[in-house]
Amino acid sequence: MARVVVDVMLKPEILDPQGQAVQRALPRLGFQGISDVRQGKRFELEVDGPVDDAALARIHELAETFLANTVIEDFVVKVEEPAVEAK
Amino acid sequence: MARVVVDVMLKPEILDPQGQAVQRALPRLGFQGISDVRQGKRFELEVDGPVDDAALARIHELAETFLANTVIEDFVVKVEEPAVEAK
Repeated sequence: MARVVVDVMLKPEILDPQGQAVQRALPRLGFQGISDVRQGKRFELEVDGPVDDAALARIHELAETFLANTVIEDFVVKVEEPAVEAK
Repeated sequence: MARVVVDVMLKPEILDPQGQAVQRALPRLGFQGISDVRQGKRFELEVDGPVDDAALARIHELAETFLANTVIEDFVVKVEEPAVEAK
């Protein structure tokens, strides 16, 4: 079992109203020094068996056709090492 | 300028209807071998100046009070190395 993460973010040229709303609120909450905030989606996929090139290609296809709207969004596929359980 | 990423995911014990909806649709779309899907939020913060311990502590506080609902969500704060522009 391995975990593959797909991060989906709006393309840089696309306005991000949610991110802007967060950014505008920061000074009011006392947080300075953050010049931009972008908000996107994170998918964690638990994959049966080894994550070989074929599996990654399939997940890339899945992200492209289903998880991201590639007209306005970019996505990144990453294999995450299984977190060592804290004893 | 550095980028700090805050990943916000529902706690494992909290039902994730969006993730389940994605997972149930996968076989219909021809994707097998994915046993679980969790969906969360990803925030990319552009931070002015160096990201030292004090800045990270502030961002951790920001995530705890504003970006995540810590009753039902966990969050992870990560400093992301500036991506080298592909030449």
